[in-house]
Amino acid sequence: MRAGPTQEEIRRHNLGTLLRYVHVHGATSRAELTTRLGLNRSTIGALTAELTTAGLVSEAAPRETGRAGRPSLVVRPESSKVFAYALSIEVDRLRAARVGLGGRILDRRETDRPRGMQVLDAVEPLAEFVHELRREAPDDSRYVGTGVAVAGMVRRVDGVVRLAPTIGWVEEPVGAALRTELGYLGPLTVANHADVSALVEHARGAAIGCDNVIYLHGDVGVGAGIIADGRRISGHGGYGGEVGHMVVNPYGRECSCGSRGCWETEIGEAALLKYAGRTDRSGRDAVLDVVDAAMRGDSQAQFAVRQVGEWIGFGVGNLINIFNPEAVIFGGTMRDIYLVAAAQIRSRLNAIALPACREHIRLRTPELGPDAALIGAAELAFERLLEDPLLG
Amino acid sequence: MRAGPTQEEIRRHNLGTLLRYVHVHGATSRAELTTRLGLNRSTIGALTAELTTAGLVSEAAPRETGRAGRPSLVVRPESSKVFAYALSIEVDRLRAARVGLGGRILDRRETDRPRGMQVLDAVEPLAEFVHELRREAPDDSRYVGTGVAVAGMVRRVDGVVRLAPTIGWVEEPVGAALRTELGYLGPLTVANHADVSALVEHARGAAIGCDNVIYLHGDVGVGAGIIADGRRISGHGGYGGEVGHMVVNPYGRECSCGSRGCWETEIGEAALLKYAGRTDRSGRDAVLDVVDAAMRGDSQAQFAVRQVGEWIGFGVGNLINIFNPEAVIFGGTMRDIYLVAAAQIRSRLNAIALPACREHIRLRTPELGPDAALIGAAELAFERLLEDPLLG
Repeated sequence: MRAGPTQEEIRRHNLGTLLRYVHVHGATSRAELTTRLGLNRSTIGALTAELTTAGLVSEAAPRETGRAGRPSLVVRPESSKVFAYALSIEVDRLRAARVGLGGRILDRRETDRPRGMQVLDAVEPLAEFVHELRREAPDDSRYVGTGVAVAGMVRRVDGVVRLAPTIGWVEEPVGAALRTELGYLGPLTVANHADVSALVEHARGAAIGCDNVIYLHGDVGVGAGIIADGRRISGHGGYGGEVGHMVVNPYGRECSCGSRGCWETEIGEAALLKYAGRTDRSGRDAVLDVVDAAMRGDSQAQFAVRQVGEWIGFGVGNLINIFNPEAVIFGGTMRDIYLVAAAQIRSRLNAIALPACREHIRLRTPELGPDAALIGAAELAFERLLEDPLLG
Repeated sequence: MRAGPTQEEIRRHNLGTLLRYVHVHGATSRAELTTRLGLNRSTIGALTAELTTAGLVSEAAPRETGRAGRPSLVVRPESSKVFAYALSIEVDRLRAARVGLGGRILDRRETDRPRGMQVLDAVEPLAEFVHELRREAPDDSRYVGTGVAVAGMVRRVDGVVRLAPTIGWVEEPVGAALRTELGYLGPLTVANHADVSALVEHARGAAIGCDNVIYLHGDVGVGAGIIADGRRISGHGGYGGEVGHMVVNPYGRECSCGSRGCWETEIGEAALLKYAGRTDRSGRDAVLDVVDAAMRGDSQAQFAVRQVGEWIGFGVGNLINIFNPEAVIFGGTMRDIYLVAAAQIRSRLNAIALPACREHIRLRTPELGPDAALIGAAELAFERLLEDPLLG
């Protein structure tokens, strides 16, 4: 329990609120900010002036209003001048980007990640990407921090990757390794890939305005980022959302985690390829090929998609009973499977989920696509600035 | 996004914070409030004076400090003068209580609820209880509202019970029926039984200081109240936590909800009695008899407890992977089964839950027992007062 804030805390809170508004919504007129934030015009003017001085926003007259009277100035985030580095460590690739305030990707790099690549070997190219991005950043631009998204379970306090079976890492100090390699950089935060994607789809994508959201991400395995009552559920240590290891079939196959019948043994890459009779292949492309074949009428591929779709509906039904969300977003390879198996997933889900829990559910695909992980990783870095824009 | 508060809003917020502190923690010295709330002594003095004038707290010198100097006054909630009515509609009984600020049960009533009793028949004795409690309340005491806990899925906005299979109600306007019957009463809020119990165990019971908690409640069926990051997860319509309808056994028995293999078909009352060969009985006592028999060495009862214990561990393991909680609390009949099957539940759970998700988990029984539902129901009524103590 905390007592109310001081005047100075309120001012800083208001600065953060205004900056966050334009960060999420983009260019906004002073008049609209007055309405949206419930502050009077002179306060908005003072806050905007302060943020402009700090180099965080800029103001300009709108192009043409077509209305009489002095037009309201438009406030926009300084996207080209204030930026974060975003890194994404995925099963089959490593990505880095320079992301401007407002969530705009300004520059990016990408390379393949051979399966089995170890942490130190992954950190090196990522650091090289950051050096490159840094060299190309304008001299007058301002760096605020680095965020890292990893397809694995990340300990919140220090960025240790506890378990990332699909990447093959266990108890790897990814945060520390990156901090060492990028020594000169300030704050660095590591989080789970699905979690940051959920945040971004919630703020800017397919789940705008939904306070209860499950973002499901398929790659080799399956994870989720969960938003409840507008906030990300991260759990005690930061490991919430491991829905891929919800056991759905007690008589099912062994899972890489040591358990049996986990959801991802029924809907993950290996399950789809096995049902499709394509165990000689692996990776995202192999999954997409099965989906394509199913659309083209290949009966074994259709069987595979049907089997996996059945189990997707099953598990999503369970999650709907547990969370009563408004939206479920199918990301990564789940998106492609969802697009060909939507009717079946919906029908299976309807059989499992209680009517009250599912009555307002919307099934969606991501709007930001694979960029969500990068924009979300940058979000981790912007968070401090948005909490207190004058922190420096 | 909301801008910062005004001075007046801050004062009211501080009044609420102080009142909430003594409501949850009981009598507290001004000195300790100064520390806990991070406010200076004169502010605490002014807030306390205002709450005293409003009749919400009282102040007195402590009995004996044994220390030199003027002792710090002790602030306590006016438990005997400010109260709510709490009603609880359960599978086999109806309860009502007058609960004082601070969560003290001042007076109570209870009657059996025959299975099959309909809403109107249940509302009548509950209303009669409230009239009785009211007649016996001191003349100078102040009523703030009524809270109702129901063992079913409750629509947040209007208190309609959407589905309560164990009570046998579907789409019943419990909130409206009670409001009609208790016409003269002010605000009335209806919520799920497990949800309010979770709130109370979190604030005052077995999960104090834990921000991520699953409170599991067993009666005929199984439900949960879930606290994530310190806040109750209620979902879009208020139906979150229906873990009893997480399907754990796709090849399992039909469930009352229309699905198959729901968790409660494996761990609910019917499953335990079936495994124990006692399908001629039902109710809480029948469950407790099986547990007793198992403790006394009855082999069929032991088999039943083992079977159910296995599935309890299974489902709890799933929930731990999804939520990464610090504590799981076993309430209702789950408590009794947990007490005889703890080792087995723990072992099964360990096989299912990922090590990182379960590493700090504590398994607990409730500290407030069956009173949690009543104190929690009253909490729904106190909430408005605590948000703004001078609202009137």
